[in-house]
Amino acid sequence: MSTSLPSNEGVLERLRGIVGASNVLVNSDDLAGYRMDGRGMGGGLPLAVVRPVDEQGVSALVRLTADEGLRLVVQGACTGLAGAGLAENGDLVINLDRLSRYISIDPENRTATVDAGVRLSALNAAAAEHGLFFPVDLGADPSLGGMVAANTGGARLLRYGDVRANLMVLDVVMADGKGTRLTLGAPLWKNNTGIDLKQLLVGSGGSMGIVTRVTVALQPLPSVQLTAMVALRDPHKVLDLLRVLEGGLGTLLTAFEGIGPKAFEAALGHVPGLRAPFAPTPPYVVLLEISAGAAFEAEWLEEQLAELLAPLMEGDDAPILDVAIDHRDGLWAIRHAVPEGLRASGTVVACDIALTRGQVMRFRDDVAARIATEVPALVPHDFGHIGDGGLHYNCVWPRDSGPVDAAAVERARAIIFDTVVREYGGSFSAEHGIGPRNISNYRRFVSARVRKLTGAVQRLFAPVPGGRIDFGME
Amino acid sequence: MSTSLPSNEGVLERLRGIVGASNVLVNSDDLAGYRMDGRGMGGGLPLAVVRPVDEQGVSALVRLTADEGLRLVVQGACTGLAGAGLAENGDLVINLDRLSRYISIDPENRTATVDAGVRLSALNAAAAEHGLFFPVDLGADPSLGGMVAANTGGARLLRYGDVRANLMVLDVVMADGKGTRLTLGAPLWKNNTGIDLKQLLVGSGGSMGIVTRVTVALQPLPSVQLTAMVALRDPHKVLDLLRVLEGGLGTLLTAFEGIGPKAFEAALGHVPGLRAPFAPTPPYVVLLEISAGAAFEAEWLEEQLAELLAPLMEGDDAPILDVAIDHRDGLWAIRHAVPEGLRASGTVVACDIALTRGQVMRFRDDVAARIATEVPALVPHDFGHIGDGGLHYNCVWPRDSGPVDAAAVERARAIIFDTVVREYGGSFSAEHGIGPRNISNYRRFVSARVRKLTGAVQRLFAPVPGGRIDFGME
Repeated sequence: MSTSLPSNEGVLERLRGIVGASNVLVNSDDLAGYRMDGRGMGGGLPLAVVRPVDEQGVSALVRLTADEGLRLVVQGACTGLAGAGLAENGDLVINLDRLSRYISIDPENRTATVDAGVRLSALNAAAAEHGLFFPVDLGADPSLGGMVAANTGGARLLRYGDVRANLMVLDVVMADGKGTRLTLGAPLWKNNTGIDLKQLLVGSGGSMGIVTRVTVALQPLPSVQLTAMVALRDPHKVLDLLRVLEGGLGTLLTAFEGIGPKAFEAALGHVPGLRAPFAPTPPYVVLLEISAGAAFEAEWLEEQLAELLAPLMEGDDAPILDVAIDHRDGLWAIRHAVPEGLRASGTVVACDIALTRGQVMRFRDDVAARIATEVPALVPHDFGHIGDGGLHYNCVWPRDSGPVDAAAVERARAIIFDTVVREYGGSFSAEHGIGPRNISNYRRFVSARVRKLTGAVQRLFAPVPGGRIDFGME
Repeated sequence: MSTSLPSNEGVLERLRGIVGASNVLVNSDDLAGYRMDGRGMGGGLPLAVVRPVDEQGVSALVRLTADEGLRLVVQGACTGLAGAGLAENGDLVINLDRLSRYISIDPENRTATVDAGVRLSALNAAAAEHGLFFPVDLGADPSLGGMVAANTGGARLLRYGDVRANLMVLDVVMADGKGTRLTLGAPLWKNNTGIDLKQLLVGSGGSMGIVTRVTVALQPLPSVQLTAMVALRDPHKVLDLLRVLEGGLGTLLTAFEGIGPKAFEAALGHVPGLRAPFAPTPPYVVLLEISAGAAFEAEWLEEQLAELLAPLMEGDDAPILDVAIDHRDGLWAIRHAVPEGLRASGTVVACDIALTRGQVMRFRDDVAARIATEVPALVPHDFGHIGDGGLHYNCVWPRDSGPVDAAAVERARAIIFDTVVREYGGSFSAEHGIGPRNISNYRRFVSARVRKLTGAVQRLFAPVPGGRIDFGME
């Protein structure tokens, strides 16, 4: 069932000439998978999805879209959450899944150079052969190009930083109508040879140009990892725990995740195969991870952890109620089950925000009280990377609360974002980047002065229509 | 002895009106200290050096320079090595030393917000009261604004990254003639709210705008540190040592510095108070540092290190000849004495370059052979941060080799830079940034396409004359 109009046949022929007929998808069945991302269905019906296999193809496609007056949308692995890779009706989608043949590891330099369509899992599989890994850790399996476009953070940012902090080179095709190719950076740990233009592509949602190849820094794979789940008497004690761990363990602490009681119960209640480490559900749960090299033994790490935590477990009102320790991935499974648990509980309203570390728990109390008053049907189920102040302030409209009241949900989102940005100086977008799903927040919270300047910078890179996001004043 | 011309009196009056008479320096004696940087005397005679104490003053000065058609040069602590803070005759120098009153530590967030003129030592003194430190470690004591302008790296980049990786907020006065003030970023570990414009100021040498305040990330101060100096039989074994340490110690390895034999002997031979850990001088020396939290004991770390190194010390041709271990800073003192040792040995020709880690030693052999043939009077005395591929490929024209042949020195510099960039794909500027002293390399090695785009970006931020560096095609 073809949905492309006859008048587009000329364009489609040109597309087939560039990438080959099998890499031009136009049937609506074929397109369905390219119209959804990590949040589900979201895109319009593109003119076509094309899958170039090399940089030359990408460059030719940019020229073609300029010729034909088409808007070009770049798409990676469709795991994004901001909608930056989803087309509107009639756009041309360049999907980079097949631009994924090149994977090269330099074990001495601890770097990897890969095509932009290579998935995180494929990169890590190749790196693991050399005892290395790419330390930006996520629940999803995005492409490296998509990770650059969103500047993904994840659970181990506390130790290793975001994509930006681990990025050395970008090969880029500019969205300038000509498909100009640039190599920005070099595969070097130290390199300061002028203003670093590749930074402008990071977090740009594919709207500054098309990343075709990346070089990233790798880290030694830890030989020993230990995870522990800590049941806290009071969420506000979380900073005491963090201080003790950072002071005692220094750089060995590689994750410090928080799970509120509702999110914890949703994961354990709805996802099969998980075992509750605590009963009853404590007021707050922290998952921590310790990673170390081959000189360490897990037992020794466990002893040190027990010693560090002991003072927080003494007395009737000790901050720590209980601790569960794991040498495998069982506790991470609970953390990773939270999103699924929420979806199983009802309709999820997701807000990817960040605060200073000291303000997370105060914000949490504050905004929960406001939602309880203003939108009582909506139940906060928050969790997040609280070691770096990142908070998935997600709420659930429970299945048994009747149909979702869209206006009430919008009210709740406005309460959450206004409170975090205007009252707490926090971020309306911590690690999912900017796309159609949150561009209204960008326009609302980023100053006109900064947007104007950003728009001017964007036009230098992408003077012709390209991407879904205008960072300027529109 | 005033050197300012009578015709400038009107300008000087206006300057005094903005920053106060005591903060406008015009006498050549007063100006002398502002005409030299980390490489010594280098600047011309500015019209004046003015020292604003707040952002309003900086903004007013930008407006004044635009009115008067003066070129504005921003200066921090005068510790830079690329000359970006040095004026030419008649420029107006804005020195930020007195913009240094604000120092605020958020211990829970592990961040510091400070005025741009605050020195690294002052920041670290304030952070230490909370058990924290700013991990970009340098021999000099620059201002934070200067560190941003150069994107300094240093000895612990291997673990903590450069300034860019630890930067959260910049308050900037744009060099746009109007002195527009911008706050770019937020004091958050996770924050992705569009294209990150503050990245354009990093490594810009003060030529994109004037940084007036910064927020940076802090790290927990290690409770235990151990340094060891390793004598290698063969410089090419350095990667074997690095692999063993990174695999065994993981994130505990915080420095991995290399010192060639000539640099080693220069430090020990010329700087008083140092004790040679080895005799005779080995073919190559590595200084390594291990840092850990309060859960560790130095003795335990030393045992682990000994165990890791033991296999490399066995047999007649073992890679490691000898190891010296230190629980204080004695071994670092040798490393830090190297620049002084070189200066005492003769005239230093300094090249701040970087390579992939695997290529450092091959490059070193290669270029040393070429210099021995082409400029035999010049003796390589290289050292560097070889754990991150950074190499101070410095040469000495010995005191007893007669007067320096400037043409021969230029030949040697061309050999070094051409070899590192064109043959090895390395960097002509690893961590000292771009300034008048190396702008010719920028123009030589950065592609016209990238320079053109960078120049256009620069003009958006700094449309009127400002700073010493034009990143465009000039």
